[in-house]
Amino acid sequence: MKLATLRTDGTTRAVRLEGDVLVDLGVPDVGALLAEEGWAARAATATGIAYPVEGADFAPVVPVPSKVVCVGLNYRNHIKEMGRDLPEHPTLFAKFADCLIGAGDDIVRPDETVKFDWEVELAVVVGAPARRVRGAEAEAAIAGFTVLNDITCRDWQFRTREWLQGKMWDSTTPVGPFLVTPDELPGGVRPSLDVRLLVDGEVMQADSTGDLLFDPVDLVEYVSTVVRLNPGDIIATGTPGGVGHARRPERYLVGGETVVTEIEGIGRLENRVVKEKLV
Amino acid sequence: MKLATLRTDGTTRAVRLEGDVLVDLGVPDVGALLAEEGWAARAATATGIAYPVEGADFAPVVPVPSKVVCVGLNYRNHIKEMGRDLPEHPTLFAKFADCLIGAGDDIVRPDETVKFDWEVELAVVVGAPARRVRGAEAEAAIAGFTVLNDITCRDWQFRTREWLQGKMWDSTTPVGPFLVTPDELPGGVRPSLDVRLLVDGEVMQADSTGDLLFDPVDLVEYVSTVVRLNPGDIIATGTPGGVGHARRPERYLVGGETVVTEIEGIGRLENRVVKEKLV
Repeated sequence: MKLATLRTDGTTRAVRLEGDVLVDLGVPDVGALLAEEGWAARAATATGIAYPVEGADFAPVVPVPSKVVCVGLNYRNHIKEMGRDLPEHPTLFAKFADCLIGAGDDIVRPDETVKFDWEVELAVVVGAPARRVRGAEAEAAIAGFTVLNDITCRDWQFRTREWLQGKMWDSTTPVGPFLVTPDELPGGVRPSLDVRLLVDGEVMQADSTGDLLFDPVDLVEYVSTVVRLNPGDIIATGTPGGVGHARRPERYLVGGETVVTEIEGIGRLENRVVKEKLV
Repeated sequence: MKLATLRTDGTTRAVRLEGDVLVDLGVPDVGALLAEEGWAARAATATGIAYPVEGADFAPVVPVPSKVVCVGLNYRNHIKEMGRDLPEHPTLFAKFADCLIGAGDDIVRPDETVKFDWEVELAVVVGAPARRVRGAEAEAAIAGFTVLNDITCRDWQFRTREWLQGKMWDSTTPVGPFLVTPDELPGGVRPSLDVRLLVDGEVMQADSTGDLLFDPVDLVEYVSTVVRLNPGDIIATGTPGGVGHARRPERYLVGGETVVTEIEGIGRLENRVVKEKLV
């Protein structure tokens, strides 16, 4: 099942992909859907208005998650190529709902940065309340997966010893378009899928989510030890090698590029980078 | 004006302190109040049920802020005594709404930590939408101030290079009881007030908010450069010296203590530390 939050008529609607149409599920967005017990059955069977998927305008798949928890270094190959030991614990940082944009939205490059970078990430979407869950309960708390581009202002990320201020820029993190349920994916809640990020058609990042050191279930277990997870919460699982900051010479987004962020079987973000026009 | 969110009859109410009573403001909490344009006039003049302040059960002053941004080292004396240079930029990290508890609630010590520590902080409560605000506009975006105890699991804080996982434990951060508007405070939006934290009556931290390197207006300017601030959002301004982790020998909360966190003219948190009973 592929679910999304569609912008239409000045509002949003939760929808299910059926062939070339998006079927209205009777709730305003995927976050509201996931907050209902038995959401999967409802989403699978609901019938409603069908919107064409062609030209669809997607909101962030969950527009207002109560939390977005992101993971630092998490691809084994990338950690090893950096000459580091595999970490014992995942490194976590945050974003807020106000950071998120839709799958086709422009990424507005803030005037305050000159090191505007990309990071393709597999993102977990939580589908049930979860605290200190383990094993099967952690697996069951995963509603599905989506694609997230953890756009980062590297100059701000490294201004101080905490990354947050490089990571929480307003309306710069595309996420979506679809939440894909684990039953659709090889590997289920531990999917092994190709991830790629392209800037103007040039492949910058390419790896497989099978290389994740802490897999989605590990991360649900770990984060839920610390804080409750609510339906709609997002865990971004980290990015593989190939970010602009690690290239020699360094490469950054300056405005005018098209960034494609895609994960096999899950979806594709396509965002134009535009320069900010400060008022 | 002193505003709070009162728990009563299984729900919450925004209230104004008048002598020894709390006057109902007609909205469920201070977050909902601040989201209304002209909230200050409404809060000042509203009349409604009066609840006794004696024995009042306070919710977090804003129960569900869209973001809680916290500042690292920010007291000059403390930075200097640690032998560090004054930083050029504030260090920022996050908490989520699910971390917050009320002014008199028990602080439940998670079973997973053995380094459970305290941090008294002056917290800014945002009263108007703000992005890239400067000067008078930043000042006007400050609804007022409250008290926050940035309870921290030091062992988790230092597991990895990012602090977040030591800072975002569920339901461990008391905040409140009152939002105090700047007109009530010497120094207004840049108040100079004594801050103290006591464990079982022993003073652990004592300083003045006049020593803040980045003052509340600076922080609203800085954070709002990166991300929009919404009414009810909280910025915790950092803690002075005297935390348990920096003591020799180190001292931590083990359960059974009473922690008092107070700021002159703003308010007082009094929380019992209890050991978690995992089910």
